[in-house]
Amino acid sequence: LNPVRPKLNEVARASGVSEATVSRVLNDKPGVAEKTRRRVLDTISRLGYRLDTAANGRECIGIIIPELDNPIFPLIAQYVESRLARYDLLSVVAPATPTTAQERDYLRHFSRMGVQGVVIVNGKYAEEGIGYGAYQSLLDEGLPLVLVNGIFDPCPIPAVSVDITAAAETGVRHLAGLGHTRIGCLTGPSHFASAQHLAAGHHRGMARAGLDLGPELVFEAMYSSEGAQSVTPDLLEAGVTGVVCGSDLMALGVVAEAQAMGRRVPADLSVVGFDGSPLLALGSTPLTTMRQPVGRMARAITRMLMAQTGNGDRPTPQTFRAELVAGATTAGVPARV
Amino acid sequence: LNPVRPKLNEVARASGVSEATVSRVLNDKPGVAEKTRRRVLDTISRLGYRLDTAANGRECIGIIIPELDNPIFPLIAQYVESRLARYDLLSVVAPATPTTAQERDYLRHFSRMGVQGVVIVNGKYAEEGIGYGAYQSLLDEGLPLVLVNGIFDPCPIPAVSVDITAAAETGVRHLAGLGHTRIGCLTGPSHFASAQHLAAGHHRGMARAGLDLGPELVFEAMYSSEGAQSVTPDLLEAGVTGVVCGSDLMALGVVAEAQAMGRRVPADLSVVGFDGSPLLALGSTPLTTMRQPVGRMARAITRMLMAQTGNGDRPTPQTFRAELVAGATTAGVPARV
Repeated sequence: LNPVRPKLNEVARASGVSEATVSRVLNDKPGVAEKTRRRVLDTISRLGYRLDTAANGRECIGIIIPELDNPIFPLIAQYVESRLARYDLLSVVAPATPTTAQERDYLRHFSRMGVQGVVIVNGKYAEEGIGYGAYQSLLDEGLPLVLVNGIFDPCPIPAVSVDITAAAETGVRHLAGLGHTRIGCLTGPSHFASAQHLAAGHHRGMARAGLDLGPELVFEAMYSSEGAQSVTPDLLEAGVTGVVCGSDLMALGVVAEAQAMGRRVPADLSVVGFDGSPLLALGSTPLTTMRQPVGRMARAITRMLMAQTGNGDRPTPQTFRAELVAGATTAGVPARV
Repeated sequence: LNPVRPKLNEVARASGVSEATVSRVLNDKPGVAEKTRRRVLDTISRLGYRLDTAANGRECIGIIIPELDNPIFPLIAQYVESRLARYDLLSVVAPATPTTAQERDYLRHFSRMGVQGVVIVNGKYAEEGIGYGAYQSLLDEGLPLVLVNGIFDPCPIPAVSVDITAAAETGVRHLAGLGHTRIGCLTGPSHFASAQHLAAGHHRGMARAGLDLGPELVFEAMYSSEGAQSVTPDLLEAGVTGVVCGSDLMALGVVAEAQAMGRRVPADLSVVGFDGSPLLALGSTPLTTMRQPVGRMARAITRMLMAQTGNGDRPTPQTFRAELVAGATTAGVPARV
């Protein structure tokens, strides 16, 4: 930052207007007379202008998440926010829900607002066929960027992800160890990287446990509790006694629907989630789940952002292992089977 | 907006630089030569400048919430985001956790970024002795503002809140109707408006049910599951058989701790939450809770924001009723009492 350029309050003083007015001019808000607007812009042109970051405001990082409803996304954002605060950075969270605001809307917004960097969690890139070209362009324009989860290899962008394939394999091993043989995999729509990785891990786990893997053991649904509820009857009809799910919300949906159908969890059906939301560990039937190491991931995300603002080497993608948290939704295979 | 002022891409073209460079100059990012920076600022001074909102970006609303961990706050933000999207507005969510970033940091950030309005959920104003002066100043500067929950009366700022006093009274009536007489109230720290309202509703409910209200029936803890867990032994020692809690997370903490102490929920202890997070309705023991009408509240919040951008009358505060959702955590009073 060039210390000779004046701050917002100095532009205001030199123009004889309030700081709010300078801000309104810079952001082209209504309610400023054209004469005043010209005077402010003339002052800026004469004196230059710098954002008064140190004195009057903190720099900001944008975190784009796919939804606020699934608690894992606010959780990741919260951990990243805490880490970034150590660098005196603010974080704002953008919910890029496909029906209302797109990731590109927020990327444009953040870029225009001059954020110091952007973190994208399970972004558009996580869908097959999107690729990393647009992200590469942003990086080339100097915007520090870290992608989180849903990564297709090879990924040329700094990225942090949890190894879903290994997680699914661990989940299958856990259920196989309890005597289950008809182990299902409930995954998201197959054009998502995460869904493909879960199915791959299920496949590998079944093979290593020496279990038959018919295609009828892999079930697809939307990444939501409602999606999971809708396919639970199919899952039970297929004789599945244990299932590895693509998210905690999906696992919760399976538990709720199985119970509504008169099945007991875990006596009749064992359910393994994925994410490790602390909230779901508290219920009277805490979920058995594969916990994402969110704290360590947030540390890596922050380090990768900082490395980029420091003009260092572009960090290479990093992968983390999920950890099995034994809850109360898995047990031995039912005797009747 | 004055259509004669050029957009970002036009400033870029006229200056012979990329849009990214103009953005970097406007946001005072490094990596732009001083000569280039001067040329861009000269162009802006000559042509003027308007944010290319319609063509190249959508206006934005800032939503400040106290934390991302409690799912009710992301839920409120998600509903508001959906509503605002109908007006083609983006929403960004700022977690003003007291230990890292303050509400005033985000207010300054949003004001500087030229957001179209700010929604503050359970903000600083919700603590006794803060008052509404700072918010009044923001309104006077032309920033559309809506406060959500935690309101001390009288509130001169457009505000939307759920009636916690009425909710607590309904919770007490529900438990009294099940035969409970030792009905506790687990509330947050008493300097919060919400905590005071909950205790007032508990008091009124006990009086109307003709029940004794000793001060030993009101318990204070941090607004978290951990806070609630820490006072659950006191609650049981006081002979409470049913308790009305200040949040779902607190209720969840009571359930978990009571079960860890060998008590059954609801056979030994009935627990009523407050918020109505959909996630907690899905478990094998869905929480009995007072549900905030988040959809209707979001509609009111959006209407109040829009009324202010339209330069209409300043909207008056509006209150909503929570609704009792009977789950599986309340039942008749234990026989042994």
